[in-house]
Amino acid sequence: MTMTPLSTVRLAINRDRLNRSIADLASIGRLKNGGVCRIAFTDADLQARQQVQAWMEDAGMTTRIDAAGNVIGRYAGRFENAPVLATGSHIDTVPVAGAFDGCLGVLAGIEVVRTLRENNIRLDHSIEVIVFSDEERSVIGSKAIAGEVHEDPAYYVRLDGTPIHTCLTKVGGDWSKIATAKRDDIAAFVELHVEQGGVLEHSKLLIGVVSGVVGQYRFAVKIKGRPNHAGTTPMHMRKDALVAGAQIVLAVNRLALDTPGDQVATVGYLTVSPNATNTVPGEVDLRIDLRDLSQSHLEQLVEQLKAEIDAIADSTGTEIETRQTLHILPTLAAPEIMTAIEQVCQDLDLPQMQLPSRAGHDAQEVGRITDMGMIFIPSQAGISHSEEEYTSPEECAQGTNVLLQTFLRLDQMYR
Amino acid sequence: MTMTPLSTVRLAINRDRLNRSIADLASIGRLKNGGVCRIAFTDADLQARQQVQAWMEDAGMTTRIDAAGNVIGRYAGRFENAPVLATGSHIDTVPVAGAFDGCLGVLAGIEVVRTLRENNIRLDHSIEVIVFSDEERSVIGSKAIAGEVHEDPAYYVRLDGTPIHTCLTKVGGDWSKIATAKRDDIAAFVELHVEQGGVLEHSKLLIGVVSGVVGQYRFAVKIKGRPNHAGTTPMHMRKDALVAGAQIVLAVNRLALDTPGDQVATVGYLTVSPNATNTVPGEVDLRIDLRDLSQSHLEQLVEQLKAEIDAIADSTGTEIETRQTLHILPTLAAPEIMTAIEQVCQDLDLPQMQLPSRAGHDAQEVGRITDMGMIFIPSQAGISHSEEEYTSPEECAQGTNVLLQTFLRLDQMYR
Repeated sequence: MTMTPLSTVRLAINRDRLNRSIADLASIGRLKNGGVCRIAFTDADLQARQQVQAWMEDAGMTTRIDAAGNVIGRYAGRFENAPVLATGSHIDTVPVAGAFDGCLGVLAGIEVVRTLRENNIRLDHSIEVIVFSDEERSVIGSKAIAGEVHEDPAYYVRLDGTPIHTCLTKVGGDWSKIATAKRDDIAAFVELHVEQGGVLEHSKLLIGVVSGVVGQYRFAVKIKGRPNHAGTTPMHMRKDALVAGAQIVLAVNRLALDTPGDQVATVGYLTVSPNATNTVPGEVDLRIDLRDLSQSHLEQLVEQLKAEIDAIADSTGTEIETRQTLHILPTLAAPEIMTAIEQVCQDLDLPQMQLPSRAGHDAQEVGRITDMGMIFIPSQAGISHSEEEYTSPEECAQGTNVLLQTFLRLDQMYR
Repeated sequence: MTMTPLSTVRLAINRDRLNRSIADLASIGRLKNGGVCRIAFTDADLQARQQVQAWMEDAGMTTRIDAAGNVIGRYAGRFENAPVLATGSHIDTVPVAGAFDGCLGVLAGIEVVRTLRENNIRLDHSIEVIVFSDEERSVIGSKAIAGEVHEDPAYYVRLDGTPIHTCLTKVGGDWSKIATAKRDDIAAFVELHVEQGGVLEHSKLLIGVVSGVVGQYRFAVKIKGRPNHAGTTPMHMRKDALVAGAQIVLAVNRLALDTPGDQVATVGYLTVSPNATNTVPGEVDLRIDLRDLSQSHLEQLVEQLKAEIDAIADSTGTEIETRQTLHILPTLAAPEIMTAIEQVCQDLDLPQMQLPSRAGHDAQEVGRITDMGMIFIPSQAGISHSEEEYTSPEECAQGTNVLLQTFLRLDQMYR
């Protein structure tokens, strides 16, 4: 049953079956307005995991759940002991999400296996489809596979106070054995995902060949001014924490807009205290998010930002504490996987471009221990983390076909 | 028992008795950290009203509660049918307050009456000391006395949903008879209050002769951007509601700082939605507070602000709705009352200055129907609406002596 490149090019996934799975999965945790809420380790997440595991088994995969709660489906290859080719993504969501972010990557993997199986094709390498635990918050699933989990379970306590061992136990994992989730038998990992920035749609291209996943810094900034009466306190006697906060919001924005490069910088979270119309703000908490594909460029931006924050503290008479809360190193895609995806796009006549992923993805973590590649397809208006997220059935099918053909190429490349 | 100016100048209030009353009142609604929480119409407010009413009666006043729940103590004058000289303030507080804002004005009035009575002095005019209902939120007490209450009770529904008629009934008022609270028999109203801006302390002066209470505009601003992923959305494709909000915060601040005049302008309230570190803010609500003694100057500032907000909406690609939520006309002090206070300060050798009140006060409302004056004393660092609010016992006594002597002068002036 050896396939020639010619015959495998004709192989195609079932568009309707893929999109039916996407719709079925989106019905679990459905919100009134059409969005999806399936926060990791909730009952909705558990129900979705069970559904996906059942689909994996129906597609001829053996399944298991590792210590990190990752659901792993395996479609055995001809050489059972060879390293595996893996794909996958996540099915947990932010509190208000659409149907595609994460889910597509999992369901595309299952659809690839369904297609191979119904065509009686078994690759040399086994294929694994992985549902990674909690991508949207702790990224614990893919971090565990990369052996990068924090030792202290306190780091993973949920917002509602639930300890991580309770969460993992609920989904079939085991915090005490988390180290066993680390893998050294993955030859390559390719993740299909919607491109959440609107770059592909804007460029009228169908496929994005991801050059890497950007590195990220997050900072928590606490500004202490002096709360006072908003009527009686003359302007020159104020220490207005929100005036300082607004200056930081605009400094962060300018940093990304005015510096050469593709970096993004955002203040997405800001709270004011006491937050009363008639009181000069005494305290502001805000959080800065900064991303770029180059670690050295990121470091320069961080230095520049810290200098600006110091100047803002001086000029507003406020005290400003800046605490780094997150640092993720960039992960570059493997050049040979990028080339394989580009060649597939040529074969399938799908116009493509290289672009970085500025969102974190499970591929970023898995890419620390093995060759990594990512395939992006357009997302309407670049909207994600929103009930308005949308990618057409045809685009989902095109991306899944690229994933299928990329696996066929990788099966030949990795020997 | 006719007093000569010479003998009445020697008349002085009892400093310790006054400050004991201030401390006793502050024990009702005391917070753990030393502050006071006595929100209008709560049990703490009710308890404080009963305490103050008892003190009024002990001081020889007859008391009544009008339809607006105002507690009114009357120290009868020699001409019972003459218009009254009134003073007073409020004893309700913001959620975290000190001991002086409002309370001083009520307790000073009672102390003035105690002093007159223990010296067997009865003025020509009756003196009234008024505890106005709910100065900190609806200002319904002094508005009712000015005949300026909104007809629709829905306007006065509390944050917790309690209707106003329930609130008024609780404190002895009666919403259905609110119109009866309007007064036409007050010859002059003088309110003693702490100066909440730090101007007196900064100038090292002991008494402020208030030139008027500023007018005020409030606006609720809703900014609609587009929520999106903070990593993946390129900077030039964003509609960041917080970037627009930060520009408005700084525009409001510049408006007050850079325009000639004494106006103040504040954004004290701002919320971000969805307020997540990794999401470009989709919506921001903020509230603007703008105050000045000149209505025409205020109108110019409002025009300028609206033009700036329109320009910010254009440049950020956001939609911005600006809704006026409050407009209070300025009230000027009566020049003859200001002169009387200044002369008293000279007599008592207390250095004074004229200044506007940029906080709203009950005097602002009462001043719409009669001659009004206000006496300010320093507040440490200009802090109020805070547990750190502080004015020394000596300063409280000085202000109360000025109030006493001003009443003695007004009793001669108003015939």
